[in-house]
Amino acid sequence: MSLTVDPKKMLELESLIFQKSGLKKEEADTVADNLVQAEMRGIHSHGLIQTENYSKLMRAKKINPHSQIKIVQDGPGTTVFDADHAPGSVAGKIAMAKTIEKAKKNGVAITTVRNATHFGFAAYYAMDALPENMIGMAFTSTGLAVAPFGGYDKVLGTNPICVAVPAGKKRPIVFDAATSNVAFNKIFFAYTEGKSIPDDWALTKDGKTTTNPADVITGGGPQLPFGGYKGYGLDLIVFIMTTLLSGTSVLDGQGDTTAECTDKIGYNFAAIDISRFTDIESFKQNIDITIERIKNSQKREGVQEIFVPGEIEYNNHERQTKEGLFISDGIAGKIRSALEQTGITAKLEDIAI
Amino acid sequence: MSLTVDPKKMLELESLIFQKSGLKKEEADTVADNLVQAEMRGIHSHGLIQTENYSKLMRAKKINPHSQIKIVQDGPGTTVFDADHAPGSVAGKIAMAKTIEKAKKNGVAITTVRNATHFGFAAYYAMDALPENMIGMAFTSTGLAVAPFGGYDKVLGTNPICVAVPAGKKRPIVFDAATSNVAFNKIFFAYTEGKSIPDDWALTKDGKTTTNPADVITGGGPQLPFGGYKGYGLDLIVFIMTTLLSGTSVLDGQGDTTAECTDKIGYNFAAIDISRFTDIESFKQNIDITIERIKNSQKREGVQEIFVPGEIEYNNHERQTKEGLFISDGIAGKIRSALEQTGITAKLEDIAI
Repeated sequence: MSLTVDPKKMLELESLIFQKSGLKKEEADTVADNLVQAEMRGIHSHGLIQTENYSKLMRAKKINPHSQIKIVQDGPGTTVFDADHAPGSVAGKIAMAKTIEKAKKNGVAITTVRNATHFGFAAYYAMDALPENMIGMAFTSTGLAVAPFGGYDKVLGTNPICVAVPAGKKRPIVFDAATSNVAFNKIFFAYTEGKSIPDDWALTKDGKTTTNPADVITGGGPQLPFGGYKGYGLDLIVFIMTTLLSGTSVLDGQGDTTAECTDKIGYNFAAIDISRFTDIESFKQNIDITIERIKNSQKREGVQEIFVPGEIEYNNHERQTKEGLFISDGIAGKIRSALEQTGITAKLEDIAI
Repeated sequence: MSLTVDPKKMLELESLIFQKSGLKKEEADTVADNLVQAEMRGIHSHGLIQTENYSKLMRAKKINPHSQIKIVQDGPGTTVFDADHAPGSVAGKIAMAKTIEKAKKNGVAITTVRNATHFGFAAYYAMDALPENMIGMAFTSTGLAVAPFGGYDKVLGTNPICVAVPAGKKRPIVFDAATSNVAFNKIFFAYTEGKSIPDDWALTKDGKTTTNPADVITGGGPQLPFGGYKGYGLDLIVFIMTTLLSGTSVLDGQGDTTAECTDKIGYNFAAIDISRFTDIESFKQNIDITIERIKNSQKREGVQEIFVPGEIEYNNHERQTKEGLFISDGIAGKIRSALEQTGITAKLEDIAI
C-alpha cells in the first residue's frame, strides 16, 4: 500500500538499511540521501525503488562496503579515481568535490572514475557545482541495454548526460536525461502494470518494432536511443567519456543488463568556473532572462506551461518537502523487502505522516 | 547545371572570391578550406552553398574583413576571445589552437568566443584535437530559429554539438549534430524543390503541426528541437555554453533568423588530453573494439550498414578526393552569383573534371 512519509525519517530508515547491509554510517547516510533526494525530486526510477537492489548488492559485496577509493592519476585540471567498487554516491561525491577544487585553480577540471558502481541520479553530483558559481556536469555509463541506430544488439547503455547551471533569482537550470529514449524502469513499470509502451522505446530481441514491454523485460529486447541517430551518437560519446576515458578496458567483453549495474561502469565529472569567462552576476542575470523568455513563449495547443530543464524536479522537491514524501505501492514493497532482509523491525508505517 | 570539379582548384577559386570580398589571402584561404571541407564531407548545408552569403556579408562588413581577434580573459585552463566579428573559421581555428595549447599543460581546457560570426561546420575545429591525441569539442550558437518543448516562439538556435575522438586503426569518431531536428537548409531544400517535410521538423507560425516547408521559409514558423524535451534541453545548454559563457548579454534582446547569422553568436571549444586519464594506445584500441562492436551489431530489416558518427562524412570525403567534388545545380548557382558579384571572370566550368 502506498503512503506518505516524513522525508527526514525516511532518510534515517534508509541509512539504517544500508548500515545493516554492511556500510559505515557516513557512507550509508550518503547512499540514503542520494535515493531520498531522487525520490523527493520525483525521479522514481533512481529513487527508493533501488533500496532492495542496493542492499542486496552490498550484502553480496558487489558494492564494496570496505572500499579504498584512491586517485590513480593526477594533473592540474584532471583526476582519475579508482572507486574500488564503492557505493556509487560515495565515490561520486568525493570525485565531484575534487573536480570543483581543481576548477577553482584552473577554471575548468575533469575527473573520471573507474571500477565504479551505479551512482543513482546524475544531478546529485552536478548540482554540487552550483553554490560555487560553477557549471557542473556528470555522466555515467551503465550496463549494456541500448541498440545502435539501425541495429538491435545491446552495445550501448542508457548513459545519462547532466549539466547544472546557476541562475540569479530563478532556480538553477538542471538538465539530466538518459540518452536512451526512457529509463529502463519506465518500461519495467509498464510491464508490471500490464500497459503497452510507445513503439520508439524498445525492440524485440530480433529487432522488430514493439509496444509490449515484456519484449524487453522477459524477452531480452534492446531499448532504443532517444532522438534517432543523434541520441545514439551522444550515447556513444558518454560511453567514451566515462568507461573508456576512465581507463576501463572493454577488450575482454563488456557488461550485461542485469540489475547489478556493477560491471565496467565509469563516471565523468566536470566543473567550469564561470568567473573565468565573464562577470558572474551578469551571467546569472542573463540566465534569468533566458529562463523568462522560454517560460513566456506562446504555448502550443493543450500545453499548460513550458518548463525549463530541472524545473519539474524542483517543484516536486518543494511540494514533498511541505507535504511529505509520497511512496507508491511498488516502491514501498521494495523498501519493506529490504527492511525484512536486513532484520530491521521498524516499519515504513512508523514514519508515515 | 551540376558538375564535378577538382577540389584543389575549387579551394583556390573560393579563396579568390573571399579575397575579392575583402579578406586577406590567408583568411580567405581558411574560409575557403572550411566550406570545401564541409562539401567534401557531404555536409551540403554548411558547404559551398554559403559562398554567396559569406561574400555578401564580407562586402557589407557584417563579417569584418579587418578584425582584431584578441584574448579578453585568460587563465590556466580557460580563455575568452573577442572575435571582433572576424570570419568564423578564422576566429574558430585560432581559438581551438589556443584550447589545445592549454590542454597540453592542464590536461583540459575550455575556450569561449564572443562577437563571433557563422563558423561553418563544427567538426572543422573539434577535429584539430585528433592529431594531438585529444578529444576535441566544438559548439556554437546560431540565430534564433527553434521553439522550446511545448511552445512555438523562436527562443533557441539550431545550436550544434560536436565531439571528435581519436581511434587506433579505425577512423576517428566524429559526432556533429544540430540540436534542432534538422539544419535549416534541409527545410530550405525541400521548399525550393516543392517537397513536403516530416511533421516533427517545424511548426506553423501559430504553433500548428505542418509538413509544408513554406510555413518556415516564408511563413516564419519555428523549427523543432530533435528528440523532444531532451533535445530542447541540450539546445538550451549549448546556448548557455556559447553565447552566455562567452560573456554575451541578451538583456537587450537577441537575434533573428535571417541568413546573416552575425548576431550574438558565441563559440565554445574544449580539448581533453587523453594521456592524462589513461594510456593512449590502450584507449585507442578500446575505441577500435567499440567501433567494431557497433558495426557488427545485427541489423534491423532494411538496414544495409550501421554507421558510427562521422563515418559517412569520412566516406564522402574519400570518395570525392578520388572522383572529384560534386557540385549540385543549386550550389553551383550560389557560387556563380558570388563570382559575378565579385567581378571574377573565371568560370566554375574551367575547373570541371
